[in-house]
Amino acid sequence: MKSIDINCDMGEAFGNYSMPNDIVLMDYISSVNIACGFHAGDAQVMQDTVALALQKGLAIGAHPGFQDLQGFGRREMKISAREAYQITLYQIGALNGFVKAVGAKLHHVKAHGALYNMAAKDIELAKAIVQAVYDFDANLILYGLAGSKMIEAAERSGLATASEVFADRSYQDDGSLTPRTQPGAMIEDEKQSVQQVLRFAEHQEVVSMNNKIIAVKAETLCLHGDGKHAIEFAKTIREAFKSKGIAVKAP
Amino acid sequence: MKSIDINCDMGEAFGNYSMPNDIVLMDYISSVNIACGFHAGDAQVMQDTVALALQKGLAIGAHPGFQDLQGFGRREMKISAREAYQITLYQIGALNGFVKAVGAKLHHVKAHGALYNMAAKDIELAKAIVQAVYDFDANLILYGLAGSKMIEAAERSGLATASEVFADRSYQDDGSLTPRTQPGAMIEDEKQSVQQVLRFAEHQEVVSMNNKIIAVKAETLCLHGDGKHAIEFAKTIREAFKSKGIAVKAP
Amino acid sequence: MKSIDINCDMGEAFGNYSMPNDIVLMDYISSVNIACGFHAGDAQVMQDTVALALQKGLAIGAHPGFQDLQGFGRREMKISAREAYQITLYQIGALNGFVKAVGAKLHHVKAHGALYNMAAKDIELAKAIVQAVYDFDANLILYGLAGSKMIEAAERSGLATASEVFADRSYQDDGSLTPRTQPGAMIEDEKQSVQQVLRFAEHQEVVSMNNKIIAVKAETLCLHGDGKHAIEFAKTIREAFKSKGIAVKAP
Amino acid sequence: MKSIDINCDMGEAFGNYSMPNDIVLMDYISSVNIACGFHAGDAQVMQDTVALALQKGLAIGAHPGFQDLQGFGRREMKISAREAYQITLYQIGALNGFVKAVGAKLHHVKAHGALYNMAAKDIELAKAIVQAVYDFDANLILYGLAGSKMIEAAERSGLATASEVFADRSYQDDGSLTPRTQPGAMIEDEKQSVQQVLRFAEHQEVVSMNNKIIAVKAETLCLHGDGKHAIEFAKTIREAFKSKGIAVKAP
Repeated sequence: MKSIDINCDMGEAFGNYSMPNDIVLMDYISSVNIACGFHAGDAQVMQDTVALALQKGLAIGAHPGFQDLQGFGRREMKISAREAYQITLYQIGALNGFVKAVGAKLHHVKAHGALYNMAAKDIELAKAIVQAVYDFDANLILYGLAGSKMIEAAERSGLATASEVFADRSYQDDGSLTPRTQPGAMIEDEKQSVQQVLRFAEHQEVVSMNNKIIAVKAETLCLHGDGKHAIEFAKTIREAFKSKGIAVKAP
Repeated sequence: MKSIDINCDMGEAFGNYSMPNDIVLMDYISSVNIACGFHAGDAQVMQDTVALALQKGLAIGAHPGFQDLQGFGRREMKISAREAYQITLYQIGALNGFVKAVGAKLHHVKAHGALYNMAAKDIELAKAIVQAVYDFDANLILYGLAGSKMIEAAERSGLATASEVFADRSYQDDGSLTPRTQPGAMIEDEKQSVQQVLRFAEHQEVVSMNNKIIAVKAETLCLHGDGKHAIEFAKTIREAFKSKGIAVKAP
Repeated sequence: MKSIDINCDMGEAFGNYSMPNDIVLMDYISSVNIACGFHAGDAQVMQDTVALALQKGLAIGAHPGFQDLQGFGRREMKISAREAYQITLYQIGALNGFVKAVGAKLHHVKAHGALYNMAAKDIELAKAIVQAVYDFDANLILYGLAGSKMIEAAERSGLATASEVFADRSYQDDGSLTPRTQPGAMIEDEKQSVQQVLRFAEHQEVVSMNNKIIAVKAETLCLHGDGKHAIEFAKTIREAFKSKGIAVKAP
Repeated sequence: MKSIDINCDMGEAFGNYSMPNDIVLMDYISSVNIACGFHAGDAQVMQDTVALALQKGLAIGAHPGFQDLQGFGRREMKISAREAYQITLYQIGALNGFVKAVGAKLHHVKAHGALYNMAAKDIELAKAIVQAVYDFDANLILYGLAGSKMIEAAERSGLATASEVFADRSYQDDGSLTPRTQPGAMIEDEKQSVQQVLRFAEHQEVVSMNNKIIAVKAETLCLHGDGKHAIEFAKTIREAFKSKGIAVKAP
């Protein structure tokens, strides 16, 4: 029997602003990336989300981002590698406070939004983030875009990695994601998404836009929790996996 | 030979705003309380201050405060006990990120400003802060005002404590500090300050405003780092201790 | 024909966090209090909310609060009167930027949350807020709790005022609100709420918890926009007013 | 008799962090750009700085920047033109609150740090900032780098402009500043700085690094207030102007 991890960004509520999908989605996934108060989340949300995740038996990861609450960490900021190291370490530490206090263990780290995207392409940024993870705890797993500089930097450092595959993005012949600026980048059809994910889970391959079969190395599927149909889609994926005998569990 | 701890709040720079006294004062003290980004400090300042403190062989404590950068954590905020627990845990965790990354150990926690003062009188707040420290690491030492609810709560929980004595505050007959609203609360004369500190260090007693000799139980002397004469005063105190054979070291 | 103002706090979205009720509720009210970025709101939300309010022909007010985004401005902060003056002026100015840029006029100011409640009882805080409003534009109307220190301070300064009456709070024999700590403070029954509001609108009186009829001087009804039934209730109130020939318009 | 404006960024203190140079430098300049709380400054600093500037008879400008207090507004952020419009309008409005409250008039706007530099090269960003200034008050003067997109956008919109010349930067043959990445970009020698400024003030020309004489159109000289020798240099410049009969006054 095969297995796959399903991860989802969570704990992105803040103060008076709630994210009611979180608790429902937790039934369909195996690992959570919890916001650490920079792009979203706060001390209360973090404590509550850690408690929920443990109740559900999920692997807990830190989800550090830019210190840009108003932009939800989605706006690029030109920071130095040293700053990237520092904000990553701060945020991992902060989340770890809540995890350690309940006697649990941090499992992984996944960067958020613009930090994730920038570090996927910029090896210096990637190395800085990886170094922060490594220095904090060399047993943490780094989650990153399959084929990105983040995965490259983590492998070089000796950190374990989990490469991400996407349900709602199409692939090019070389195995990279079709850039969002090109037509067909997003898979709008839910059935096609499920098909892509299943094929990947069973055979570790995807079909490119040109109908070429490509091997993809990945260990975790990223589910987006904020769409309208997020919960429905999570259920569908989960049932599809079940019907094929694919277990959902964290790496 | 007797010994005493001298602690000082540090790492209270922020972004473009520096605190140049920090590095100089480190030569005269034995433990530092490092701001954690809520009332002052940021990820860069925290990393730098941790590195400096380790170079100087100082014991490192977290210095959590209210999330009020503009008010420097000095304005009272009416937060619930649960919120006090959460913001304390977040900040201890964040600082621990930098301490753990360099292979060092966190030594103590001391609350900052209005949080320190409110928790000194409010047992619910005190218990919440103490619980956060305890849950994070039951081996940490809680620094607090001698005779305060913080010390009481920490003792009840089983945490080790270090009670603070002040060089620049006068005492009343019952061993409590003269309230700042009363004349003579602050000791302006440096010689008198040194005398009070020495007497305390040698005999664990202070002389009240009414010239009564009072036993004071305390393990750490708090030096204020931001005054004009802070560095001069630190030197003087340190030399006075040396002349009396009193060692300066962390508990 | 009688008339009354219905005001509602709006523009309390922030960054990625939306407040979808706002646009719907605007059809049932006559004036809006727009958050200014301290307790909620941001530059984008402010621009959008000002534009919507003008489309709907609503009177626009500034809604300044404490600089406590995480606590949504609902936590008391011990600030000086001078600080209250400064944060009020800053926020009125900021909102006025968006109002002035589209050639409109600011109509009123209403303090938010803990600032509103503290200033209702503290004459020094009230005077400071009123002075900021007055110094910015002596023609603005101050919205405040009927019978509060805010209204008292505004009247003394010469500012026009609009006293607030509540649909969901019961009254005591002396015309003050039943404190929330007492049973019966909140009116849970929607019909009773509507009755209270109608009686007030027609006769400027309310019935106290002891069934005493009390004259109440007020010019504006505060609707809460964030409850589950907020929109339904707004419709009901509005229709009740219409059936009695009571116009809804800003003072 | 010729005249020139000398402008300086001010009000960049924050909370507990002071900027003691401000009050001294005000004796040597003619216009101030006051931070608006996003990259530096807060409501108290803004009120105090406006009051001081008026006492000294200086022209008051808003100095909007990125919402990045920790980075002092010096880190590039990828914001949309619409966001640039909104944060500029918010900040101008906020500062205007303090200016209007004392019966004074805002005189100009100058963007700060990374926002200034990005908008100097990016016409869309420049147009958005200019539009915000124009929409707020079409009589404001836009201060910007001589020859930049900001000046171009302002001129197209019909706003009056003041182009900036620098004392401590060298020029290339085409009249542009030598990029900081090239040797000789910064003029370290104070005498040479004074010479450059005087030559410019008297003849509206500078000497390039290749000793070519170039005409430069500019109306205002930017003094940096944060260097060690900032006050000394301000005095020297001011005396040099006096000796040549060049008046210092705002446009």
